[in-house]
Amino acid sequence: MANFVNRRQFPIEWGHCDPAGIVFNSRFFEFFDWSAWLLFEAALGVRPGDLSARYGISGIPLVDAKARFMRPAKFNDVVEIASEVGRFGRSSFEVRHRITVGGELAVEGSETRVWAKQDPDDATRLRTVPIPAEVISRFTIG
Amino acid sequence: MANFVNRRQFPIEWGHCDPAGIVFNSRFFEFFDWSAWLLFEAALGVRPGDLSARYGISGIPLVDAKARFMRPAKFNDVVEIASEVGRFGRSSFEVRHRITVGGELAVEGSETRVWAKQDPDDATRLRTVPIPAEVISRFTIG
Amino acid sequence: MANFVNRRQFPIEWGHCDPAGIVFNSRFFEFFDWSAWLLFEAALGVRPGDLSARYGISGIPLVDAKARFMRPAKFNDVVEIASEVGRFGRSSFEVRHRITVGGELAVEGSETRVWAKQDPDDATRLRTVPIPAEVISRFTIG
Amino acid sequence: MANFVNRRQFPIEWGHCDPAGIVFNSRFFEFFDWSAWLLFEAALGVRPGDLSARYGISGIPLVDAKARFMRPAKFNDVVEIASEVGRFGRSSFEVRHRITVGGELAVEGSETRVWAKQDPDDATRLRTVPIPAEVISRFTIG
Repeated sequence: MANFVNRRQFPIEWGHCDPAGIVFNSRFFEFFDWSAWLLFEAALGVRPGDLSARYGISGIPLVDAKARFMRPAKFNDVVEIASEVGRFGRSSFEVRHRITVGGELAVEGSETRVWAKQDPDDATRLRTVPIPAEVISRFTIG
Repeated sequence: MANFVNRRQFPIEWGHCDPAGIVFNSRFFEFFDWSAWLLFEAALGVRPGDLSARYGISGIPLVDAKARFMRPAKFNDVVEIASEVGRFGRSSFEVRHRITVGGELAVEGSETRVWAKQDPDDATRLRTVPIPAEVISRFTIG
Repeated sequence: MANFVNRRQFPIEWGHCDPAGIVFNSRFFEFFDWSAWLLFEAALGVRPGDLSARYGISGIPLVDAKARFMRPAKFNDVVEIASEVGRFGRSSFEVRHRITVGGELAVEGSETRVWAKQDPDDATRLRTVPIPAEVISRFTIG
Repeated sequence: MANFVNRRQFPIEWGHCDPAGIVFNSRFFEFFDWSAWLLFEAALGVRPGDLSARYGISGIPLVDAKARFMRPAKFNDVVEIASEVGRFGRSSFEVRHRITVGGELAVEGSETRVWAKQDPDDATRLRTVPIPAEVISRFTIG
């Protein structure tokens, strides 16, 4: 058994980069966020905009994010980001992202997200709910 | 009679700049957007988040934006942005922005926005409504 | 004879959108910028990061940008952006961008850029230089 | 003895927020980055753009960043960010950031940065150098 991994490649744009000519750190968290949505789309066959309605949730809000920057990614580099769910809890899960440039690991990061729905007693708040088993099973292969 | 002008000063951050060491163009449109909200706050005494409720509108959506870049703004520069409503139509208005660095004009831009409310026949659409006279009067002084 | 047009499609990400659920205006100028680079890559066969070295220029700095927002682009929409050079001057050119959603025009914009090199008398300044005829010819087909 | 803490307050802008009406996660890393620069300015009396020249370094590149999101920050909220150096190593240091909304902790994060200079044998690479004692002493008070 192995984790289902989703990969995408994209070029580093001029507007992603800072005066040092390398990707400004906050951009990596944008890349992570979108890769988390795409991982769910690839694993579940549900488009990002349909995820809430399909599972009766409000979303998959982020509770934690981190990144380690090992090598810079520069303007014009083509990067690959490989994303997988590293661990499922009852209502939370950890998405791991690895960004490589020319096959070498440049950035490693993770996001902790929760399966959440509106609190029936207070519409302005979310509360976590258990992740369905059929969702979890789609993130493992073999 | 003169237009009411709102001014704010802020430093150019590392993350605003591109590999040429100057502000990346899309950032100026972020600066414009926020200065439009602040202009309304200063003229009307209504905080950005309360504007919709106070006037029964859905917002002041943008229909047009433009900028001319005359001089670069660089990391560490302190810029001043001066914003005013240049022209009111029945339901639209033009916000003009001038960004100076060290007293010299660096960027000149404008946004056309509309006074809009939800279409009663189709909640997914907006329709423009007349701008109240008491709103318009607050953008002129003297 | 017709303009060479470069097209790309991409999805609207969660992080592109504002509290109204639609693309925040500054993001369109990011889309335009990157599409200008990709248009040059497609027309000239030169990758964005190699453009300066290939033509002995410092870059293609922006002097003017504008956009008209006709329909919103929402989270999850797949947009197409079609970019072409609408007009070449001696040392400036206008890149036109049209963004469609489901075949309908959503945003129309343009950027004026210049062919520029470092001023030999003052390394901190750029000066415009004539655009080579063989560059211009690559933006017309037929 | 206590850590020198730098604080700044700013409003959450429309363009900082996502379709859930709350600050999009990557923006917090922009806030952290700029607050790190401002902490250095406040502690050392050196403006961000002068830091490299003043200490003969190439910069203070980031090697690690993380954030925990405890409460959302919404459009129109005024947030306070308090930043301090939590720990100095020989050539690395950890900047800690705490963002509060209405006095309640919303986001807690940290950045690991290094004191770095160009490698004399390879101008495309950086290497870490010891942080001067007189720099470190400015981040402690009492």
